[in-house]
Amino acid sequence: MTIRMHDLAGADPAVRFSPYCWRVRMALAHKGLEVETIPWRFMDKDAIAFSGQGFVPVLRDGDTVAHDSWAIAEYLDKAYPDRPWLMDGEQGRALANFARHYAQNALAPTIFKGIIGDLFKALDPGDQAYFRASREKRLGMTLEQFQIAPEAALAQLAAQLSPLRATLREQPFVNGRHAAFADYCVFGGFMWARNVSGVKLIAEDDPVHAWRERMLDLFGGLARKSPRAVA
Amino acid sequence: MTIRMHDLAGADPAVRFSPYCWRVRMALAHKGLEVETIPWRFMDKDAIAFSGQGFVPVLRDGDTVAHDSWAIAEYLDKAYPDRPWLMDGEQGRALANFARHYAQNALAPTIFKGIIGDLFKALDPGDQAYFRASREKRLGMTLEQFQIAPEAALAQLAAQLSPLRATLREQPFVNGRHAAFADYCVFGGFMWARNVSGVKLIAEDDPVHAWRERMLDLFGGLARKSPRAVA
Repeated sequence: MTIRMHDLAGADPAVRFSPYCWRVRMALAHKGLEVETIPWRFMDKDAIAFSGQGFVPVLRDGDTVAHDSWAIAEYLDKAYPDRPWLMDGEQGRALANFARHYAQNALAPTIFKGIIGDLFKALDPGDQAYFRASREKRLGMTLEQFQIAPEAALAQLAAQLSPLRATLREQPFVNGRHAAFADYCVFGGFMWARNVSGVKLIAEDDPVHAWRERMLDLFGGLARKSPRAVA
Repeated sequence: MTIRMHDLAGADPAVRFSPYCWRVRMALAHKGLEVETIPWRFMDKDAIAFSGQGFVPVLRDGDTVAHDSWAIAEYLDKAYPDRPWLMDGEQGRALANFARHYAQNALAPTIFKGIIGDLFKALDPGDQAYFRASREKRLGMTLEQFQIAPEAALAQLAAQLSPLRATLREQPFVNGRHAAFADYCVFGGFMWARNVSGVKLIAEDDPVHAWRERMLDLFGGLARKSPRAVA
């Protein structure tokens, strides 16, 4: 039975931009598993009520329901141990955990500041009010106040990318010679930006840029072929 | 034959504070290897000329001479494969590499700004002129201009520690359940501060603080027992 995944979608249902859903899309491709994605919107809480919570990604694999990108990656390694691992043992797991927290804590806040206006525009009209209200409450300011100029996002991210840049000068992927879940955790944040925004977040001569190009090429260009809300 | 290591020392030769030398001290203890450390100062370039370069740590193990903390860790895993590994395979290596670049690029610059005055005072008088001239040239300003207030160092570091903090909320060490070279790479920067400065860099309720305490306790309190230039 095909694996099914609820995946956050924009006004155009083909546009998928959730960084957490992208982690799982890449993880499934890494495992060589087919997936049928179901476009989901913030207002569709009922559609994923079977998972016992209200956020995507939600994965259904036969009788198994899993949510949360980290838990899904652990599930996939456990359920498909004969496929290439996402997190190989204790060090693979520690690496992925550190990489995801680096992505979430150091990079994502800056990416969010740079793309928030474009992200809002890419949302389904039915989701926009929810997004504005929930994010403005969390941020303590309006989306417009939170947004920074593209040049500022590029400069701030350049500083925050320094550990990743130094690592990628010495090895092609965060995980080493080959990409694995540590890479997908960081890459998800860049897919979030790519598919809703034209803001340039990484200078073209940055080793992180070359890594992102390699990531876009993986699995027959899975990520590169994904539709964008922008030209 | 005992392993010997040239180790940066302060005015008090018992005070050892190089973050790179601390990585190796911990790595040697991890491997269960005895070491005789030789106090070394910046002006003693001749004493390590046999290594073909001018920086410590320099390790001599029988006929082998190794320098650079990363190369030394790789050497130790290769020369002593029956002892606990420092970097276990490709993921262990990728984890340590990302952790060291995080330590060097994200944390060390802020630690340096916070402790530079104390560090200067702890140096041997014969090293102070060299240190001032070389660092002021690199920084493009005087040591005094570069220094930030203890409160600023604490606050800036608190933000930069966020990926490490989130990771250590979920696992006791950077490496996972047990410490390994990834931990020693990050810990070296805190020993640099500890042994020359009384500046408080981590709030006591920070999970990073509890981790540092665990690190100080390792190997019978090797790091905790090390002499400090400050009370």
